Amino acid sequence: MIRVGILHGAGYVGRKLIEQVLVHPEMRLDVVTSRSHENQPVWKAHSHLRGITELVFLAEIDVDLDVIFIAAAHGQGAVATGKLVDAGFNGLIVDMSADFRLKDAATYLARYGAPHPRPDLLNTAWFGLPEITGPPPAGTKLIANPGCFASAISLALYPLSQTGITTAVSVTALTGASGSGAVAKATTHFPSRSGNVKAYKVFEHQHEAEIDQLAPGLKYSFVPASGPWTDGIWGVAQLDLNKEGEIGSTFHAAYDQCPLIRLWPGQLPELHWSVGSPFTDIGWVQKGSQVAIGFAIDNLLKGAATQAIQNVNLALGLDQTIGLLP
Amino acid sequence: MIRVGILHGAGYVGRKLIEQVLVHPEMRLDVVTSRSHENQPVWKAHSHLRGITELVFLAEIDVDLDVIFIAAAHGQGAVATGKLVDAGFNGLIVDMSADFRLKDAATYLARYGAPHPRPDLLNTAWFGLPEITGPPPAGTKLIANPGCFASAISLALYPLSQTGITTAVSVTALTGASGSGAVAKATTHFPSRSGNVKAYKVFEHQHEAEIDQLAPGLKYSFVPASGPWTDGIWGVAQLDLNKEGEIGSTFHAAYDQCPLIRLWPGQLPELHWSVGSPFTDIGWVQKGSQVAIGFAIDNLLKGAATQAIQNVNLALGLDQTIGLLP
Amino acid sequence: MIRVGILHGAGYVGRKLIEQVLVHPEMRLDVVTSRSHENQPVWKAHSHLRGITELVFLAEIDVDLDVIFIAAAHGQGAVATGKLVDAGFNGLIVDMSADFRLKDAATYLARYGAPHPRPDLLNTAWFGLPEITGPPPAGTKLIANPGCFASAISLALYPLSQTGITTAVSVTALTGASGSGAVAKATTHFPSRSGNVKAYKVFEHQHEAEIDQLAPGLKYSFVPASGPWTDGIWGVAQLDLNKEGEIGSTFHAAYDQCPLIRLWPGQLPELHWSVGSPFTDIGWVQKGSQVAIGFAIDNLLKGAATQAIQNVNLALGLDQTIGLLP
Amino acid sequence: MIRVGILHGAGYVGRKLIEQVLVHPEMRLDVVTSRSHENQPVWKAHSHLRGITELVFLAEIDVDLDVIFIAAAHGQGAVATGKLVDAGFNGLIVDMSADFRLKDAATYLARYGAPHPRPDLLNTAWFGLPEITGPPPAGTKLIANPGCFASAISLALYPLSQTGITTAVSVTALTGASGSGAVAKATTHFPSRSGNVKAYKVFEHQHEAEIDQLAPGLKYSFVPASGPWTDGIWGVAQLDLNKEGEIGSTFHAAYDQCPLIRLWPGQLPELHWSVGSPFTDIGWVQKGSQVAIGFAIDNLLKGAATQAIQNVNLALGLDQTIGLLP
Repeated sequence: MIRVGILHGAGYVGRKLIEQVLVHPEMRLDVVTSRSHENQPVWKAHSHLRGITELVFLAEIDVDLDVIFIAAAHGQGAVATGKLVDAGFNGLIVDMSADFRLKDAATYLARYGAPHPRPDLLNTAWFGLPEITGPPPAGTKLIANPGCFASAISLALYPLSQTGITTAVSVTALTGASGSGAVAKATTHFPSRSGNVKAYKVFEHQHEAEIDQLAPGLKYSFVPASGPWTDGIWGVAQLDLNKEGEIGSTFHAAYDQCPLIRLWPGQLPELHWSVGSPFTDIGWVQKGSQVAIGFAIDNLLKGAATQAIQNVNLALGLDQTIGLLP
Repeated sequence: MIRVGILHGAGYVGRKLIEQVLVHPEMRLDVVTSRSHENQPVWKAHSHLRGITELVFLAEIDVDLDVIFIAAAHGQGAVATGKLVDAGFNGLIVDMSADFRLKDAATYLARYGAPHPRPDLLNTAWFGLPEITGPPPAGTKLIANPGCFASAISLALYPLSQTGITTAVSVTALTGASGSGAVAKATTHFPSRSGNVKAYKVFEHQHEAEIDQLAPGLKYSFVPASGPWTDGIWGVAQLDLNKEGEIGSTFHAAYDQCPLIRLWPGQLPELHWSVGSPFTDIGWVQKGSQVAIGFAIDNLLKGAATQAIQNVNLALGLDQTIGLLP
Repeated sequence: MIRVGILHGAGYVGRKLIEQVLVHPEMRLDVVTSRSHENQPVWKAHSHLRGITELVFLAEIDVDLDVIFIAAAHGQGAVATGKLVDAGFNGLIVDMSADFRLKDAATYLARYGAPHPRPDLLNTAWFGLPEITGPPPAGTKLIANPGCFASAISLALYPLSQTGITTAVSVTALTGASGSGAVAKATTHFPSRSGNVKAYKVFEHQHEAEIDQLAPGLKYSFVPASGPWTDGIWGVAQLDLNKEGEIGSTFHAAYDQCPLIRLWPGQLPELHWSVGSPFTDIGWVQKGSQVAIGFAIDNLLKGAATQAIQNVNLALGLDQTIGLLP
Repeated sequence: MIRVGILHGAGYVGRKLIEQVLVHPEMRLDVVTSRSHENQPVWKAHSHLRGITELVFLAEIDVDLDVIFIAAAHGQGAVATGKLVDAGFNGLIVDMSADFRLKDAATYLARYGAPHPRPDLLNTAWFGLPEITGPPPAGTKLIANPGCFASAISLALYPLSQTGITTAVSVTALTGASGSGAVAKATTHFPSRSGNVKAYKVFEHQHEAEIDQLAPGLKYSFVPASGPWTDGIWGVAQLDLNKEGEIGSTFHAAYDQCPLIRLWPGQLPELHWSVGSPFTDIGWVQKGSQVAIGFAIDNLLKGAATQAIQNVNLALGLDQTIGLLP
């Protein structure tokens, strides 16, 4: 059994990681930490897990583990990773924060407004979105798990980026409130969120730097928005090919062998279909040279926890769907 | 025209008061204050009012007004009232906070955990729920506007309290998220509120002290809960008469002359019907000795702003529905 | 007073028209019809109007009226209009259906799949979106009120269409469930709609024919979607100018004199702001040659009832905002 | 492996049964039927199951199975059961409909308004709510699975029914829209359901007959209501003991050995906690002689599918939680 620890398990990403590890047939959840909930049962933070796990939050992680997921905030992921590395942890680290996703420290500084806490570790990290990057190379000790918007949009745009298309792609995508985390914020205040849609960081979302790495060379613009639901990202990418041509074969070539991508030719996927699942749904509709590509994922699963499991499965030589499909 | 000021107009109750005064044919909104939004247009706090009012938030209220609504937090309502009185304001004050609702300072201390800021003014206040208390007596200078749960439940129970019923009445009522105010809180975090119901302050809600004053002598218990919507209170009161008897005539006798109460014999009102309106909806179903009384109001309207207008209309000798019905 | 009748007043558009006419200072609501609710009080269909109006649904409309709004389904609007004209009605008809919006019967047949019921009346109709078309010309007896998506998108695109821009504009817009009407449908089934987003009629929405008339010459594509809320349309139009240039002055030039359009330079409007109001909110963000234009309306108000009032106000020589703003 | 079939698998209960059987380590899903979706993949009805199961809906069930779940409408469950019995099916039938829940045909007629289709089979059925009735007796061939409201309320009231309490218990409980099934209805129309609460069948809900069997001898009244969410039942039972006394020990005695019941002394459970899980959450608050008991379940899981699995596990001698907990 793979011995697993989760650092900072009291938030939403932590919760999903706990649930995923508990159902994984090859994993055993040994440690979950939370300073704010130290010595309390895990169900004190996640009531619905009462009766399912007897684990108690610890303050510190043990290094006698095979895999550690770090569900810390941006900036703190690199610090926690550094501490584990410095303490001689020799297993696999999966950092859920943005800290090791960008290849160079200068882009990190530009996007996150602070110098990278551990630039010395940057080139040891594998930024892994399995359907695009493939499995982590042998010997990988640090995996940077992609962001939620970045995962969804990169998967929708990556096949296009392989075709040499030069026309602009317009992306509008909406995310649920769980993407803002477990702490109440003005943007997740129920009266402001329910029945509302609100664009934010128009053309300035920090995940664009990840998309640039995963679907390079494409000219795109991105309007992110908050939608009135809890889980899931739904979006549309539109482009005009400026010529005749068929877009579907590109997607089939890219993803037909991917068990966790579902293609929907001739229709755009509904948000509901992927919520609660490890799947990415991608569909398209074409009319002459006009193309609409729809995409949807669960922001906490394919956008975080199940993608992390997928990455670990691959790093450890398991089938990537183990623990993710019945 | 009645010259109106609103103290602390940047919150939800303030917003509804602004809207009500703007459509009131006998009122003119002269001043709205907000320290956090000083010198900003009102629409900076209430975007939907852009194009409707050009008013700018002031920091301080003017005393050259006929009516001042104070939409401050509990504890601060009395302080603000005291300052106005001390400054020689001679018009009508409507305090939307809990501060002048309870007749004696000791109950206030017990319910709110702090000594009353201005006990000297307590006996000058009129605690007014028009359909129960009638209009403010001549010369009233300070009106204490009832709480939202208190308004809804008192109106549902008051007719029973006139009958000498001695059996216990069980009340379960749910409120929307706007009742928690405009500032984000853990209880209004979208992922926790959407699709959820959560009881709180079971048998301990502070509005019970108001209900005790408005529907005295009744043996009741109250389970308040948070529901997954923004506006409105919906609840059910159940009792067993322990004898044959018909309950409907009691409600008709109490409310048939009340233009802002709608009675629904034989059915319980839906929450939707009263939301956005100044009405209280009350219905009942009886089966043998079992009785269910359903009730619904808009917590920010009958539970705050329109009830305040109703009280002012009556205090100034106007028809109580002026400005509230087309 | 303008004597008003509403044909088919039991649906959602009918409800909003009733409410708008009741608060209009120059209008008097004389007749509301509904065959399914014949001889029942209006509040039997619209519970929240109990206590506000004593009107009873009639089966047939009276022709002794100044204005008749027809809130019938597509295809039936033209039939009802024709019957009124044939019966000698000499007042103003406002048809809320799609039947008189398109200039020629061939486009109608192509879009709606049935021959136009009354092509003889087509050239008597004024297709009026006031901020684009201006007021109805003197003598107008039949106004075709635009569709909800058409109103929102045309207002967002019209200024662009005046600039000679040739690059493709990508529109993604989401609408609430009230746009589907008062009768339950699979697309408005709560478990399917709540927490979901679903694209439909991608590149094929029938309102495109209206947009073609109102913002002609523009190359655009439109992905409509259903969102998990009741009222309101929210959308984004994106384009790449392919050159430097500033887009804002175009919008100011087009709409600065329009009291029911609110411009938001540098930000995209939230859906909430316009819901419940007669306003159209339009904002924009530009980064280099990339442009995002956001727009929002209440689909039943600016998308139907208040736009109809606006059209009637203008046709009768009143200020267009009478009855719409306090 | 236990060979399982599901009759009528295209609805919501069918969907949850499919999901539960797919993750059950001792079960193999061999057949799912749906006449409306004959020969279509299961994911045509349940999009989120694409990529998870390759099963295709059949029109007819095979009798070469160990367990058949019948997810038919009331009235049709008995007919389908009868056909299976007549065809010589010798395995275990679990009828999800109401048809075999009531012990006598006369009560069925009174509650459902139609004669029982197969009264000859009534006394062969085991009405099983495991925490109250215990496991099905050896040789059971037909299990009647309880209704959703009946399960929740009976579990909340059963311990009280063991104490000889004679005072009236008032129950108010709200259910989500999935309880109305997969077909759109007026009561699940999004604009009517969202932001609304609506009581229905006050004191007349058909599940009362089941509660009478499971928690006999108790004097209770029940107000059911529809809440604005998809999954889950949340409710409160209130009573006045009319004497001093402590209620908690009763619940501990009844349920401390039940792995799928979670007790919450001193607080009422939130709806969220049980949604998506096989658990029943029960909590209580007591103040003097006043008692509030809160309860929550997932109406499609403990109220249908997972309770059915629990019953089958017990009937087949397995641990009742197999396939339900990780």
